[in-house]
Amino acid sequence: MSETTLPISALHERVEAIFRKAGLNSVQAGALARVIVAGERDACKSHGIYRIEGALRTVKAGKVKPDAVPELEPQEGSAIVKVNAKGGFANPAFELGLPVLVERARALGLAALVINDCTHFSALWPEVEGLTGERLAGLVMCPSYATVAPTGGNKPLLGTNPFAFGWPREGKPPYVFDFATSVAARGEIELHRRASKPLPEGWALDAKGNPTTDPEAALAGAMLPFGGHKGSAIGTMIELLAGIMIGDLTSPEVLDYLGTTTLAPFHGELIVAFSPEAFAAGRPGNPFARAEVLFEAIVGQGARLPSQRRFAARAKSEAEGVVLTQAEIDQLDRLLAFGLDAIV
Amino acid sequence: MSETTLPISALHERVEAIFRKAGLNSVQAGALARVIVAGERDACKSHGIYRIEGALRTVKAGKVKPDAVPELEPQEGSAIVKVNAKGGFANPAFELGLPVLVERARALGLAALVINDCTHFSALWPEVEGLTGERLAGLVMCPSYATVAPTGGNKPLLGTNPFAFGWPREGKPPYVFDFATSVAARGEIELHRRASKPLPEGWALDAKGNPTTDPEAALAGAMLPFGGHKGSAIGTMIELLAGIMIGDLTSPEVLDYLGTTTLAPFHGELIVAFSPEAFAAGRPGNPFARAEVLFEAIVGQGARLPSQRRFAARAKSEAEGVVLTQAEIDQLDRLLAFGLDAIV
Repeated sequence: MSETTLPISALHERVEAIFRKAGLNSVQAGALARVIVAGERDACKSHGIYRIEGALRTVKAGKVKPDAVPELEPQEGSAIVKVNAKGGFANPAFELGLPVLVERARALGLAALVINDCTHFSALWPEVEGLTGERLAGLVMCPSYATVAPTGGNKPLLGTNPFAFGWPREGKPPYVFDFATSVAARGEIELHRRASKPLPEGWALDAKGNPTTDPEAALAGAMLPFGGHKGSAIGTMIELLAGIMIGDLTSPEVLDYLGTTTLAPFHGELIVAFSPEAFAAGRPGNPFARAEVLFEAIVGQGARLPSQRRFAARAKSEAEGVVLTQAEIDQLDRLLAFGLDAIV
Repeated sequence: MSETTLPISALHERVEAIFRKAGLNSVQAGALARVIVAGERDACKSHGIYRIEGALRTVKAGKVKPDAVPELEPQEGSAIVKVNAKGGFANPAFELGLPVLVERARALGLAALVINDCTHFSALWPEVEGLTGERLAGLVMCPSYATVAPTGGNKPLLGTNPFAFGWPREGKPPYVFDFATSVAARGEIELHRRASKPLPEGWALDAKGNPTTDPEAALAGAMLPFGGHKGSAIGTMIELLAGIMIGDLTSPEVLDYLGTTTLAPFHGELIVAFSPEAFAAGRPGNPFARAEVLFEAIVGQGARLPSQRRFAARAKSEAEGVVLTQAEIDQLDRLLAFGLDAIV
């Protein structure tokens, strides 16, 4: 199959134009294009242009406002910065809140950005990297829809609740992890179903709450948390902090609201920023230099730092452009020509 | 074997007297007695009176200062509160910092307590419960000594790095988890060794970095993180935030400093406090009432909330006193009579 190589900026223009054609305003379209192109650039295909249709499907279903303009509630004198996404996507809300969060974290040493009333479908590493790019460490989490049973339970209740963290590195891509707190992503179960392959043990329960390796039964049942009761506890913590504490929906409430897992979920997001310089002030050693010693020790024994494959793909894309298949180009052309009418 | 039942207050007096006899000043002895008696009260035997000898061994080895007086560095205008433990135990430093942390978290919505230059041997749930008792949510973490290989690696580098979280509940014990980020605690491997029982697969590597189920080989090798690369990433995050960021030792540095894992580790600790009331302000619903709905849904499907066994034991101990074996009573008597001379 023939392939087309596009410079990152050209891909961005094309994706942004698709969102504009579909009726998104410029703040929504620009921010969405940035995260989707970043995913494609990093060879993170599951969060690349593949996601455009899901976002548009959610627009078409009336579950996200294409013309929302996020509103900043700076809450002077607090370590909490809030942005209300006004029913739009989380990404423009994050872009609006980031500079205030950065300023607040530098001033106070520690600050949080709360995004409320947003639809969130992207990975969390764009948020994490927004912070590491400002020499801050960051912890980011959000609920999802109820598809995961708590350990010892038998029904979907928790979301796949992603948990992401980043630490800035000088002259290098940051230390970043970003993972689902389920043992596997829902998409991986779907891939096993399509390939008629049994699941590894410990991934899922069937609708009766019994362990299953049948992907079909798993999709009708519940996924399991990673790491047994510990992952289940972390998933619960995310419901509490990034759902209930911030006054936004929990994963079961998201599923009730949407009635499906085929649309992008509507909930909130919690971003905590730490200033290593403020925390380390007055103590021996430079925290960034000391972190490099730790990273060298990890890599030196043959272990990997997370996200390295993504950063390698990014360097390649930045030098050579992004490679798309003809099918992908055709899909972009179709979306650009027909807007929401291309969504069935 | 005969058993003795002691009221909690009587056990506290006895444990505090032991620490005083061993030369600890009153702030150190009081705080240590509180966490050790809390462990015993909660039937958390691994953090109960069993720990007295280890604490005293560390005193005798000159690796913790028995007469340290922690110093508060309140850092007005910051979301960071610091306490320098001055080479003493972490527990009196936490007690000193807690009221300031609580005040700061209520005022700013979010605040952190950093404890530096401390010896830490207790569980983290006493810190978590210090926060939940003030209607705050809390996240607590610290390094340990290097005994855990990062996923994909083959040598000890990370610590068992505990990760703890709590959410306040009205009229009930809080939601609390507190776990090692290794797949098992080092003590569990030791128990398998004593019982000549093989370890479950996936717990450990031998000194050559190969998987092993031999407890002896595991103790000479490395433990593995819980949950594969995800747990490994969380363990690394704890080294970064609760070691490097706060300007204190990482797990490999702790092991270098102590030269052994038989003494209590010297490092720092990070406690992050969130005010659910501040975060939820202006949003629909009461966060504490909403959390109860989540907890009911977890329990309602047969799953357990963490720490429930501990809280049940606590209620029993508070009503009936703490039951000790004759061997335990004899040990307390011996420690009280001979102080540090009882430690070999």
